Amino acid sequence: MDKHTISILVENRFGALSRISGLFSGRGYNIESLSVAPTADPSVSRMTIVTVGDERVIEQIVKQLNKQIDVIKVWNVSDHAAIERELILVRVNAGDKNQDEIIRTCQAFGAKVVDVSGSSIALEMMGDESEVENFLSLLKPFGIKELIRSGTVAMIKEGK
Amino acid sequence: MDKHTISILVENRFGALSRISGLFSGRGYNIESLSVAPTADPSVSRMTIVTVGDERVIEQIVKQLNKQIDVIKVWNVSDHAAIERELILVRVNAGDKNQDEIIRTCQAFGAKVVDVSGSSIALEMMGDESEVENFLSLLKPFGIKELIRSGTVAMIKEGK
Repeated sequence: MDKHTISILVENRFGALSRISGLFSGRGYNIESLSVAPTADPSVSRMTIVTVGDERVIEQIVKQLNKQIDVIKVWNVSDHAAIERELILVRVNAGDKNQDEIIRTCQAFGAKVVDVSGSSIALEMMGDESEVENFLSLLKPFGIKELIRSGTVAMIKEGK
Repeated sequence: MDKHTISILVENRFGALSRISGLFSGRGYNIESLSVAPTADPSVSRMTIVTVGDERVIEQIVKQLNKQIDVIKVWNVSDHAAIERELILVRVNAGDKNQDEIIRTCQAFGAKVVDVSGSSIALEMMGDESEVENFLSLLKPFGIKELIRSGTVAMIKEGK
């Protein structure tokens, strides 16, 4: 069971998101993360879905997506050289004595402090899957109070 | 008609995304962007939805969301002090003579080059809504070939 990233260009029609996510749940395909937002052409949206399944299941998903009236084009990103990124906002417990260590961890990952309260620090960070997971595993010992992830977005490299 | 960001904690149940997005489309509420991904507790997901409507419509949306069995808690982020961020991947046309100017624009916005081909440069950038819009308006004259946005994610500031 591998993780796959699927990128979909869809007509920005009423109910397109509901129809596409319904296709996944109706057929028993699990969505791990999803993001959808307009492209440079506001009549077209880009949807990026991370799902878990074997190759055969992913092929079925892509076939089903191609049959949807709202769908313009589908890519199984895992078949291409691609840039995959995720944005996270994370709040960790931060007493006086571990504040320095949290800030050093931030610097190593290009993360930034976005909010400080008496007992916690909130951080913003962007990276690929392994950078995000490594960053979170270093923060875990402090106690993660809140974690908000954008889900993966992906861009296929040109001519690859 | 204002833009509103709604943040929802949902049980990570089969079909929850489809039920919630169906609620929006079924009642004629437009979703501009949506992102959903697991929180630190994998049985709970965070959904962030940007929608456009007057105050009365937003109140109705929040009420309807609160009635959903999958929904744990709903926030109208616009009622709070909050950090809102978006991640974008953008590919622009880049001949030899405008490459320098694109890179200077990147530096001003903390953006990074992630892919270079003969005729284009792909960039990653993260910021709040006005930073993302300003960055895109400076890139527009070069010609935007591809734009992939994560949609907004939001974290409410502590104690505010």
